[in-house]
Amino acid sequence: MKKVQVGIVGGTGYTGVELLRLLANHPQSEVIAITSRSEMGVKVADMYPNLRGFYDLAFSEPDVNVLKACDVVFFATPHGVAMSMAPELTAAGVKVIDLAADFRINDLDVWSKWYGFEHTCPEMMAHVAYGMPELFREEVKKANIIANPGCYPTSILLALMPLVKADLIELSGIIADGKSGVSGAGKGASVAMLGAEMSESFKAYGVGGHRHLPEMVDKLQVLSGQDIGLTFVPHLVPMIRGMESTIYATLKQPMSQETLQDLFETTYQNEYFVDVMPAGSFPETRMAKGSNMCRMSVFVPQGGSTVVITSVIDNLVKGAAGQAVQNMNILFDLEENCGLQHVALLP
Amino acid sequence: MKKVQVGIVGGTGYTGVELLRLLANHPQSEVIAITSRSEMGVKVADMYPNLRGFYDLAFSEPDVNVLKACDVVFFATPHGVAMSMAPELTAAGVKVIDLAADFRINDLDVWSKWYGFEHTCPEMMAHVAYGMPELFREEVKKANIIANPGCYPTSILLALMPLVKADLIELSGIIADGKSGVSGAGKGASVAMLGAEMSESFKAYGVGGHRHLPEMVDKLQVLSGQDIGLTFVPHLVPMIRGMESTIYATLKQPMSQETLQDLFETTYQNEYFVDVMPAGSFPETRMAKGSNMCRMSVFVPQGGSTVVITSVIDNLVKGAAGQAVQNMNILFDLEENCGLQHVALLP
Amino acid sequence: MKKVQVGIVGGTGYTGVELLRLLANHPQSEVIAITSRSEMGVKVADMYPNLRGFYDLAFSEPDVNVLKACDVVFFATPHGVAMSMAPELTAAGVKVIDLAADFRINDLDVWSKWYGFEHTCPEMMAHVAYGMPELFREEVKKANIIANPGCYPTSILLALMPLVKADLIELSGIIADGKSGVSGAGKGASVAMLGAEMSESFKAYGVGGHRHLPEMVDKLQVLSGQDIGLTFVPHLVPMIRGMESTIYATLKQPMSQETLQDLFETTYQNEYFVDVMPAGSFPETRMAKGSNMCRMSVFVPQGGSTVVITSVIDNLVKGAAGQAVQNMNILFDLEENCGLQHVALLP
Amino acid sequence: MKKVQVGIVGGTGYTGVELLRLLANHPQSEVIAITSRSEMGVKVADMYPNLRGFYDLAFSEPDVNVLKACDVVFFATPHGVAMSMAPELTAAGVKVIDLAADFRINDLDVWSKWYGFEHTCPEMMAHVAYGMPELFREEVKKANIIANPGCYPTSILLALMPLVKADLIELSGIIADGKSGVSGAGKGASVAMLGAEMSESFKAYGVGGHRHLPEMVDKLQVLSGQDIGLTFVPHLVPMIRGMESTIYATLKQPMSQETLQDLFETTYQNEYFVDVMPAGSFPETRMAKGSNMCRMSVFVPQGGSTVVITSVIDNLVKGAAGQAVQNMNILFDLEENCGLQHVALLP
Repeated sequence: MKKVQVGIVGGTGYTGVELLRLLANHPQSEVIAITSRSEMGVKVADMYPNLRGFYDLAFSEPDVNVLKACDVVFFATPHGVAMSMAPELTAAGVKVIDLAADFRINDLDVWSKWYGFEHTCPEMMAHVAYGMPELFREEVKKANIIANPGCYPTSILLALMPLVKADLIELSGIIADGKSGVSGAGKGASVAMLGAEMSESFKAYGVGGHRHLPEMVDKLQVLSGQDIGLTFVPHLVPMIRGMESTIYATLKQPMSQETLQDLFETTYQNEYFVDVMPAGSFPETRMAKGSNMCRMSVFVPQGGSTVVITSVIDNLVKGAAGQAVQNMNILFDLEENCGLQHVALLP
Repeated sequence: MKKVQVGIVGGTGYTGVELLRLLANHPQSEVIAITSRSEMGVKVADMYPNLRGFYDLAFSEPDVNVLKACDVVFFATPHGVAMSMAPELTAAGVKVIDLAADFRINDLDVWSKWYGFEHTCPEMMAHVAYGMPELFREEVKKANIIANPGCYPTSILLALMPLVKADLIELSGIIADGKSGVSGAGKGASVAMLGAEMSESFKAYGVGGHRHLPEMVDKLQVLSGQDIGLTFVPHLVPMIRGMESTIYATLKQPMSQETLQDLFETTYQNEYFVDVMPAGSFPETRMAKGSNMCRMSVFVPQGGSTVVITSVIDNLVKGAAGQAVQNMNILFDLEENCGLQHVALLP
Repeated sequence: MKKVQVGIVGGTGYTGVELLRLLANHPQSEVIAITSRSEMGVKVADMYPNLRGFYDLAFSEPDVNVLKACDVVFFATPHGVAMSMAPELTAAGVKVIDLAADFRINDLDVWSKWYGFEHTCPEMMAHVAYGMPELFREEVKKANIIANPGCYPTSILLALMPLVKADLIELSGIIADGKSGVSGAGKGASVAMLGAEMSESFKAYGVGGHRHLPEMVDKLQVLSGQDIGLTFVPHLVPMIRGMESTIYATLKQPMSQETLQDLFETTYQNEYFVDVMPAGSFPETRMAKGSNMCRMSVFVPQGGSTVVITSVIDNLVKGAAGQAVQNMNILFDLEENCGLQHVALLP
Repeated sequence: MKKVQVGIVGGTGYTGVELLRLLANHPQSEVIAITSRSEMGVKVADMYPNLRGFYDLAFSEPDVNVLKACDVVFFATPHGVAMSMAPELTAAGVKVIDLAADFRINDLDVWSKWYGFEHTCPEMMAHVAYGMPELFREEVKKANIIANPGCYPTSILLALMPLVKADLIELSGIIADGKSGVSGAGKGASVAMLGAEMSESFKAYGVGGHRHLPEMVDKLQVLSGQDIGLTFVPHLVPMIRGMESTIYATLKQPMSQETLQDLFETTYQNEYFVDVMPAGSFPETRMAKGSNMCRMSVFVPQGGSTVVITSVIDNLVKGAAGQAVQNMNILFDLEENCGLQHVALLP
C-alpha cells in the first residue's frame, strides 16, 4: 500500500517536533514536506537533535503547490494560518488537520470574540469535524477538515462525556480545575516560562478566561443539547509534559461508586486510548507520558452528591500531535492505533 | 528580657528542621532542648547540614522533666504524642504547640473516626485554641495548648473566611482543589515519594478522604454556625515546597469583582501574613517560598455566580512551623512577626 | 520466524520496567515469564500502570525449569543472583544477559574486593562477553553470558575508546566526571532519594570509590594492554533519567579539533547507537531520553593539550535495558536496532 | 549609627532582586535608589512580588547625581555599565561594587579579548580590589571599587586557595568541572532557558571558552606567582539555584587525606562563610540555598596523586549578591556577616 504522504506547516514548535517524533516510526505514512518561513533551509534534525538519524528533511518555504501533493497536511501553526490555506488544499482533495483553533468552535461569533479576529472561511465549517474520535468518530471519517481539539478540552470532555450522555449531572454548575505542564505554553522565548521562573512553583492563570472554555462549552452543548454553566480555571505545573484535570459536578440523583465505575468502563471498553483506572486508584500524568493514552478515575467523595473525575493525558500527544495522528489514521482507514502504541515513559 | 526557652519534641522531620531554621534567627527565643528517641546523641547540624554553625545542640531523650524547664514545647511528632505529654506540661505552666493533629478537631468522635484511635485527654480540649491567628487570635492569647493547623486548612480557611463571615456563599457546595509540594509527605523513606517517582508528574490522591477535610468542616462550622458541604481533593505537585488551593463557591447573590476585592483587602489589611494580590493578578507558590506569607486572589469568572479564590502558602512555614512560631509570638506577647520577616526566595 | 522467548528474573525495579517497555513493542521477541519472589501473583501492569494494555503477565516464582524454556533470560536483579542460576541455564542452552555486575570484571579478586563476596562460578567467565557491542561485538556474538555494562562505564568507555585504540592519550591520568539522574539509584525506598531531598540540589557522591571504577579500569586495560590511572567522581543530578560524563585526558602530542572530530566520526560511522555531534555543539541528556543513543562531542579547549569528551546516554536505556536488548538482538542474529528505534522524548 | 545609604543600578535581574532580598532585612543599610531605564516608574514589589510589604521603592532613571547621594552603589548591570559611571561616583566618595565583570581582570588586554570591547577607565584599576574577602580582605578594606567575583570563580578559587598558597599542586594541569543552576543564565527571555528545554536535562556548554576562565587564571597567578594551566568546563543543572565545582589537581608529593583535611580546616577556621565539611562527607548545593555559605570537601581517591575538591555555593548569594553585601560590610566596617546569617532552605 502506498504510504500516506504527509505535509506539515509550521513544524518548529513543540507540537511540530512531536508530530515528527510520532511519524518517524509510523509504518503507513511518510513526511514529504515541512514548512517554516523563519527556518527555511534548516534541517529539522539540526533544530531538534532527537531527530538526528530519523529525518534528512529541511524546513522549506510554505508553498501551497507543494502541499497539494500531500494526502494530508497538518497545521502546527498559530491561529489563523490553517484557515488561510484550507479552502485551496481541500479543493485539491487534501485532508487538513489543524492543531490550532481555527475550526474548533461552530459558532463563529463566539470564535471571533475569543480569538480577536474575523473567521475567513465560514463556508468551510460544514466540512469540519471536531477531532475527538471517542466522541465524534463518524464525523471524523467523513470530514475534509479536522479541528484537532485543545489539550484541556481533550482531558475534560473525555471525562465528562459518559455523565453528559447519560444525563446524570447538573449542567449548570460544572467545575473543571485543569493543570498543565509548561510545554503547553509553547516554545516561544518568554520570561514567565524560563526554568528559573516556573520551576518549583505552582499557580493558577488565565484570569480573563481561557480560550479552551468556549470550546468546551460548545462541545458540551452539542453532546447534551442543553445550556452549559462551566467554570474552568487552568493552572501551571512545574513539569514539562502532562495534564491533569479534576472535574466536579453535581449528580442529579445519588449514585454509587460502583454504578459510575461500570458506566465509565462500559463507555470506553472498546477505545484504544481511554483507560478507566480500577476503582480506588488515581491516574498520574506520568502514566501517559509520551503516549496517546487518556487515563481517568471517577469517584464520589464521602458518598455525597458531588461526582469527581480526574483524567490525565500527555498534553503534546493525546492533547495535540498524537490525537492528530489518530485522526489521520481514521481518515485514511488505517488501524486507529497505527504508530501510536508507545508505552508511557516511566519512570 | 529573658528569651523564651523553647523545647522541641521530635525534631527530625521537615517541620522540625523548619522550626530550627526559623528559631535560629529568632531574636527573642532560644532552643534549649530537642528530643528524638531514635536519633539520641546525634547533633542536629549533623542531620541537617544547613544548620551547621547555628546549633551545637544534639537530640536528647524525651524527658518530661527537661521539657518542664521550657516556656513552650513544640511537638513536631506523629499524631498522638502531644496528647500524651500535654497534661503534665501544661500543669507545669508550659505552653504546648502541637504541629500534629491531636487537638485540631473539637468533636472527638469525629477525631477518633479519622485518626483511628481514642483521644486520651478530652479534658484538655477546653484549654485549646486552633492556632490560626487571623481567625482565632483572642483564643490563642489565652490558650495553654495550641492546635497548629494543617497546611491545607491554612490555605483554604484563610481564603474562605471573608466570604463565610459575611455570609455571602452557599455553604452546602464548596469545592476545594488543593495542590501540595512533596515535602508535605514528610521525610519518611517511601517509594511513592522518590524523586524518580514524583518528578515530572502530577496526580490527585486521597481517594478515601483526607484528614484535613473534617478539620476544615469543623472550623467552617464554628465560623458560620451552619452545616457545611465541602468537597476536597488534594493533589501532589512535583516541587519541594509550596501549596496552592483553588476554592469554588456559589455566591448567594451576584457580586462584582470590585466588591469582593474590597472585602478581601479590608478583611486582611492589618494582618502581617495575609496578602491580597492586586485584582487581575494571581499568586504563585514561589511568592511565599521560605516565608510565612499567605497570598491570595479572588475573582468571579465571566461575571457569573461562582466565586473563585486561589491562595498560596509555603506548606512548611505558614502551613506548619512558621505559623507555630507566630502562635508562640502571640502567646508570649512578642511582636507577631518577630523572627518571621523572611523575604520569599525568588527565583 | 519464531519469536525469541524471553524470561526476566527480578523485574520489579527500574531496569525491569524499562525492559518491559522496550520489549512490549519489540517485533521479534516475546516475554513469557517474569519472576519476583516478593511480588508473586501481582500483574506487572498493576505495579507499572504504563504497561496497562500491553501485558497480561503476572510476576511468578523464580523457577529454573520455567526459565529453561526461554531462549534468553535477563537478570534485573541484585548482584549475585545471576551467577547462582547462570550455570544451569547456560547448560540448558539458554543465553543469559545479566544487567547486574556478576560478570563484568575479569579479575575475580578485584571483583570480590569491590563487591564484598566470593564469586561462585569462576569457571563461567570463559563464556562471558562484556556486552558493549561497539567495543566487543564479536565476543558478544559467541558468548553464552552477557555482562551488560554499568551505566557510567557505557558513557565513559564509548567516549574514550577512539582515543585509547589510537593510543593518543596518557593513560596514567584520566579524569572522568560523571553525572547521573536519580533513577540510577533504583526503586528502593530511601530518604536520600526522596523528591524533597534530591530535587533542586546537586552533589558529588561515592567518596569511598564507586564500583564502576574497577569495571572501567578493567576494560581500558583490555583495550590498551596497559596500566590505567583513572580518577572517577560520580554526581547526582536532579532529574529522573539521563547521564552525562565529561572526560579529561592529556594528549600525547598536540592534535587539532578537526583531526579528533574526524577520528570520532570515522570510528562510529557505522554504529546505530553512537552519534558524534557536529563540531562546536554539545549533547544534552534529553537528546537521548527514552532512546538507546549515546551522543558525544570531542573538543580541545583553547587548543591546549587536554582533550575533553562529553557523552550522554539514557542511563536506563543505553545504560541498562536498551543495551541489553541490543545484545539480545546480536545473540539471536536480529537487526541490531530491532525494537530500539525510539526517538528521544523532547521536550 | 546612620545606616549605609545604598543605590542599585540595574536591579531588574536575578542579582538585583537577590540584593533587594538580602538588604530588606539588613539592619545597617537602607536602599534609597534603584534604577532601571526600561522599568522606570515600576515598583520593585510589582516586578518581584516576594518583595511586597518590604519595599515601597520604584525603579527610577539612572541619574548620577542621585547616586552620588549614596554611600555605596551596586551595579547589577550588563558588562560595561559600571565602568562608565565608576570614575564620577568614586570621585564623589561613593564606593562602587560591580557585580558584572568590568574590573575583574587586571590584564586589560586579556579583558578586552574576552569581553569584546575596550576598557574605558584603565586608570581606575589601581583602586580596585577583587571582592573575595577570604583571599583579598585587606585589599577590599582599602578599595574604592570592588570587582565582585563571578560565581564559578568563587566556588573554584575558594576550593583551590589552600592548595595553591601552600604550593602543593602542579599548576599546569588543573581541571575544574563546574555545574550551575539556570538562574545563572539570568532573567532574559530565551528559548534555551525555557523550563520545557532545561528541565530533566543536563549538558556541558561554553565550548568556545567561558569568560570565568581568564578571571580564574588571573587570580591564581596572583596567588601563586606562577603560570597556570586550567581547563574549565561549565555545565547546566536542571535546578534554579546552586553551583557545584569538582576540581582535580595533581599533588606534587603524596599527601594523606588527614593532612589535607587539616590544611583546609585550618585555612578556613575563622571564616564566616566557608565551611569545610567533615572528612568523608560531601556538600550538596541545597546546603547553601539562599545563604552566603560556601561548603567544601577535599579527598584523595584511592590514596593516589590526584586531589579532588568539591565545593558548593548558591550562585546568587555567595556567587553574586551575598558576596557583594559581604564586601559592603567590610567597606563600612560592619560585622562581616551582618544581614547575612540566613540558614539555607532545606528541604
